[in-house]
Amino acid sequence: MGIRASTVGDETPWPAEVPDRQDRPHPQESFSETIISPESFFGDLRSLFVQTVLLTQLQQLRKQGSYHAFNLQWNTKYDIRKLHGAKCPILGSPPTLYWDSDVGKWIEAACYFLSTADGKTSPLASEFDAAIEELVAMIIKAQQADGYLGTYFTVVDPKGRLKNLRDMHEMYCCGHLVEAALAHHHYTGRADFLNAMIRYVDLLSATFGPGKRQRHGYPGHPELELAVLRLYSRTKNPKHYAFAKFMLEARGTSESDLGDKTFFVWEAEQRRDTYFHRTMSDIRDGRYHQWHAPLHDQTAILGHAVRAMYLLTAAADMEGDLHNDAKRLWTDAVDNKMYVTGGIGSVPEIEGFSEIPHFLPNSTAEGGCYAETCASIACMMVSERLLSHRLDGKVRDVMERCLYNTVIGGASLDGKTFYYANPLATSGDEVADRSEWFDVCCCPPNLCRTVGLIGGYAWSVEPFTDEKRVIHLNVYLYLSATRSIPLPDGSVATVEMKSEMPWSSKTTLRFHAPEGWSWRVNLPRPGYASRFSIDGQRHSSEGDGSSFVNLILDHSAQTEVHYDMPIRVLSPHPSTHQDTVTVTRGPIVYSAEAFDNAALDRLSPHFDTVGLLESASFTEARIRIGRMTVIALDTRDAFQVKRQGKDDIGSTKVVNGSAQTLEKADSPLRLIPFFARCNRQKDERIRTSFIRVPRDSV
Amino acid sequence: MGIRASTVGDETPWPAEVPDRQDRPHPQESFSETIISPESFFGDLRSLFVQTVLLTQLQQLRKQGSYHAFNLQWNTKYDIRKLHGAKCPILGSPPTLYWDSDVGKWIEAACYFLSTADGKTSPLASEFDAAIEELVAMIIKAQQADGYLGTYFTVVDPKGRLKNLRDMHEMYCCGHLVEAALAHHHYTGRADFLNAMIRYVDLLSATFGPGKRQRHGYPGHPELELAVLRLYSRTKNPKHYAFAKFMLEARGTSESDLGDKTFFVWEAEQRRDTYFHRTMSDIRDGRYHQWHAPLHDQTAILGHAVRAMYLLTAAADMEGDLHNDAKRLWTDAVDNKMYVTGGIGSVPEIEGFSEIPHFLPNSTAEGGCYAETCASIACMMVSERLLSHRLDGKVRDVMERCLYNTVIGGASLDGKTFYYANPLATSGDEVADRSEWFDVCCCPPNLCRTVGLIGGYAWSVEPFTDEKRVIHLNVYLYLSATRSIPLPDGSVATVEMKSEMPWSSKTTLRFHAPEGWSWRVNLPRPGYASRFSIDGQRHSSEGDGSSFVNLILDHSAQTEVHYDMPIRVLSPHPSTHQDTVTVTRGPIVYSAEAFDNAALDRLSPHFDTVGLLESASFTEARIRIGRMTVIALDTRDAFQVKRQGKDDIGSTKVVNGSAQTLEKADSPLRLIPFFARCNRQKDERIRTSFIRVPRDSV
Repeated sequence: MGIRASTVGDETPWPAEVPDRQDRPHPQESFSETIISPESFFGDLRSLFVQTVLLTQLQQLRKQGSYHAFNLQWNTKYDIRKLHGAKCPILGSPPTLYWDSDVGKWIEAACYFLSTADGKTSPLASEFDAAIEELVAMIIKAQQADGYLGTYFTVVDPKGRLKNLRDMHEMYCCGHLVEAALAHHHYTGRADFLNAMIRYVDLLSATFGPGKRQRHGYPGHPELELAVLRLYSRTKNPKHYAFAKFMLEARGTSESDLGDKTFFVWEAEQRRDTYFHRTMSDIRDGRYHQWHAPLHDQTAILGHAVRAMYLLTAAADMEGDLHNDAKRLWTDAVDNKMYVTGGIGSVPEIEGFSEIPHFLPNSTAEGGCYAETCASIACMMVSERLLSHRLDGKVRDVMERCLYNTVIGGASLDGKTFYYANPLATSGDEVADRSEWFDVCCCPPNLCRTVGLIGGYAWSVEPFTDEKRVIHLNVYLYLSATRSIPLPDGSVATVEMKSEMPWSSKTTLRFHAPEGWSWRVNLPRPGYASRFSIDGQRHSSEGDGSSFVNLILDHSAQTEVHYDMPIRVLSPHPSTHQDTVTVTRGPIVYSAEAFDNAALDRLSPHFDTVGLLESASFTEARIRIGRMTVIALDTRDAFQVKRQGKDDIGSTKVVNGSAQTLEKADSPLRLIPFFARCNRQKDERIRTSFIRVPRDSV
Repeated sequence: MGIRASTVGDETPWPAEVPDRQDRPHPQESFSETIISPESFFGDLRSLFVQTVLLTQLQQLRKQGSYHAFNLQWNTKYDIRKLHGAKCPILGSPPTLYWDSDVGKWIEAACYFLSTADGKTSPLASEFDAAIEELVAMIIKAQQADGYLGTYFTVVDPKGRLKNLRDMHEMYCCGHLVEAALAHHHYTGRADFLNAMIRYVDLLSATFGPGKRQRHGYPGHPELELAVLRLYSRTKNPKHYAFAKFMLEARGTSESDLGDKTFFVWEAEQRRDTYFHRTMSDIRDGRYHQWHAPLHDQTAILGHAVRAMYLLTAAADMEGDLHNDAKRLWTDAVDNKMYVTGGIGSVPEIEGFSEIPHFLPNSTAEGGCYAETCASIACMMVSERLLSHRLDGKVRDVMERCLYNTVIGGASLDGKTFYYANPLATSGDEVADRSEWFDVCCCPPNLCRTVGLIGGYAWSVEPFTDEKRVIHLNVYLYLSATRSIPLPDGSVATVEMKSEMPWSSKTTLRFHAPEGWSWRVNLPRPGYASRFSIDGQRHSSEGDGSSFVNLILDHSAQTEVHYDMPIRVLSPHPSTHQDTVTVTRGPIVYSAEAFDNAALDRLSPHFDTVGLLESASFTEARIRIGRMTVIALDTRDAFQVKRQGKDDIGSTKVVNGSAQTLEKADSPLRLIPFFARCNRQKDERIRTSFIRVPRDSV
């Protein structure tokens, strides 16, 4: 069954010619060429996902009702007044509106796992196959005559279809279903689902676009842009490329056709809608959805973090201005608005970025912290697209930091519970326990598809564009896997990587290609690495920051990477006004939890007056948490920070001399990886950043 | 014209007997016995208020439309859909609903000023008299046949009258009009306005109460409780006392008459209303308005700060449990949720208290800070009521801290602009400039009536309850004023106080009473005072905390108080996670602003990386700001705090040793009193708390 060609009619303005564009393969196109080694960090993790997470999520989708939504039957959960009251729909859109995207992400995830060895051999594979089959059949059947595909508006409000792109997430759901269909096509070789999605994209790109008879719309929650670009890399249909480009370029522009207004203001007027998001000051305030200005004129990353990063993922996939805009805004996010864990979005009220740089409170007690799992996944997505254009050690380091901390920490190590927000500390009555499911459940299946696609994030092979027989391999992540690389002459090269990361640096790579071929390999030198060496030869001095080291290798070769991962104490920017330090080792960020430190937590709930020496020394201990072996760090350099001075008003003390006394903690402080938190007991209390104790005052 | 006796009908459950209650005179009953010296700190301030603030506010009320609201004509501002959109009234009540209370507070303020010498002799006195006359005539005429008195519901929504006590502020407005009527009665001796208000209170206390035929309601925004208690101290009508007590005791109780629900849940069901405040999780969530539990069961101060403090003012005015509840919750507010400036309410979204103790960010950049002017005024009100029961040095110190910082800072020193929120620092694009007026304009006239009543906060005379001829005088504030004290035998005693506070401690008191009388005087020893002496005799050692010193004096006597006010550096609780210090001198909190420190502000906008030594030394300089002479503090111990270490991800640095380097600031740092901020230039940027720099690291 072939992929359907889109119809390019006379009435639409889309070009019929293929754009002049360098091919930058998406991870989705090649992930299944990578086989993660079962006996490795990500092998263990994937085994958890195949054995438990995929099944748990399937059961939750069934329980929630989203699994059967494509049957187009009424569901009592569609009645949003029951949830929010008739008078004030405080959310921009009903929670059931996201169901299509959750189902899409689960299908996508399942297809990724089933496309590779660990999934194929799972005893649950046939159950997953049957679910995919049933869902895809329902989806195809749910498509309307004109191509429309969306459960909520088909069942609940047919007249409301595509009239509120700002809030109603139809384009967002379409994008996730397109990605699901691409994964399904890759896995099964069947094009029925993908063709259905192409028909829906046809409807959208006929309805929306720059033409006089089109509405000049784009999604309030970006996602369709990046999905249509991925679709383009499969279909090579120039319309798909042009439609994505239109959505990116039209965003935030005022158009004469719309009375010199931006689309969302015009669209709201058409609906006679004066509602605006409760945290925004005006209906024309586009910061929350990133349409306050065209992307090119946006100087700071603002608004909802997941929306922003999905938007940048598509922009980073383009050439020229749009790519540069993505890099500029990604850099603002990373340098000024990112937590040490790779979490982004410090303002819970908007699930997004603060207006103020370095507003990075650790927890509710310090004024915020959200750090949605989806936002860090999306940051990995932008980073991957940026790396596909130009290798950059910092971009790689950020991608890895997100992955090893906020992203994989999103699931419990029994595979049954999940995080939405990932604050660095608990406070008050809060505990850090994960939840079984959420009303709006974007994060769990998003995490599942990301772990399913991990091979696509590990390394990339540059397209064979010249006559020379050179394989360009860019390693992004040191992990244990093999990759087969189909060569233009029909033969196959392989690379085998064996790594002890994230616990130890030793990584061996073995390259095999037919004679006559050679390798050009870029290996990352992470920013946290010291004494970095390849085959015993040191590369650059310490303190140079992260980068990639380029190697030219014979057709068959072996190479070994070594570096030290000293325990590092990190201090935030002074403008955070948080006098705290965080302990890291390689890409792993460490946290204390009550399970290991009950005495300290009793003395100072949530460890909130526990101090650490910047020069603290640690001992390492291998411990088991769930199915994972991790390295814990123990220190005797923890202190109880107490104030000295005389009481004054308003919980202040008069100091005039020295504000604090320190009392060495009786018991040592044990730190464990942030991602492994809350796997050993309920009602867990955690803290990742500790009050900094200057050495001089001890 | 006598005060009208309330009708106590058979249908209402109110007692006809006077309660067994010790008289604790309200400041409003005796403030005019105090004459503030014109040549003094508060003399200067009152002169500003009489000459400019009262007039500015009168003009603003006219401009806004609230002045003429009692004409009961339609005003376009009543159309709240214009402001908030038809679909989603995001505020609980329309802003015009507060107009009655703003007018009430202005009348109250004007009557206070006109009752005392500085107001009476003002060239504007006749203009104010005419306005009071016109307003009172309109108000009396606006009263409905059944006693109802409220402009919004009379003009806009007669059917909605008294159906939403939770949000619609009718009882709140009534309370402020009662207080205005009491002041008007005191000033003019005329009872027409007061009688009208007694009729309205009659309607409310017939409609609401514990009786079977009454609705068991109380105000969503407390105020009527305290106003009716003040009314009681004038009328001695037991119904007024009982009605206030009912409102206090019914609050937050579940009643069998209401199907075991609290009143506001029952009332919302009657309205078929499912709207709830956007920051609350459920319509049954009473924390915002303090009805989540009966007052006696509330263990922590929560919700909207002004509501909470108005509620506690009434409770503190009662005996027994209610008084103790007020003290307990006031103590939680002061010890755990109060800024160094006496500001309360750190969460802007609810204009209120955090759930978490010590959540006290300085500004937006640190995650919050609201500190509404009204909230600190209300904290003074609670403190005054607590002091009226039992002298307590800490309660006095808090009242004084509020007054000298957040409260009087609420107006500019040209008397034309006002603060609503009082964050400790600006950040980002924010500036600290005051505003001319607000849509909901509670703070400016509230400040005006507080300055008008300052004599009532200065000292109190205990009722003459025994046969011994002893005058019990409790001094709360050292300031320059004289007070005449009518004695039971018809003669008059006087006390004259001359003080250089808040700049210098020297205070002389002269007592004159007829022969045969003696004085029992309590003089405050503030917590910030060292080497405290009376007539050269030291009282208690330093570090004992604040207290009152009791003196027994002859009928005619003179005494002199002296103490040192060292510059003090204050450090917040470690659980605030703010590594900052604040400089104070006596009750005055100091801030830096850009006007004096342009170079430092350029280096570090909003001074946000400026550090101060805990042991910093300062020189004092008398400078003129507006019409006030204030003491500024200059120091050369300010530092630019810079990070050292290697860049890492997420605006962090690797430190492992020492996180910061310090660079001595080129120019000295000048600090001025917080209340005097933003009086010399526009777009002022300020900071009150500075990064602490341990002496050891310099």
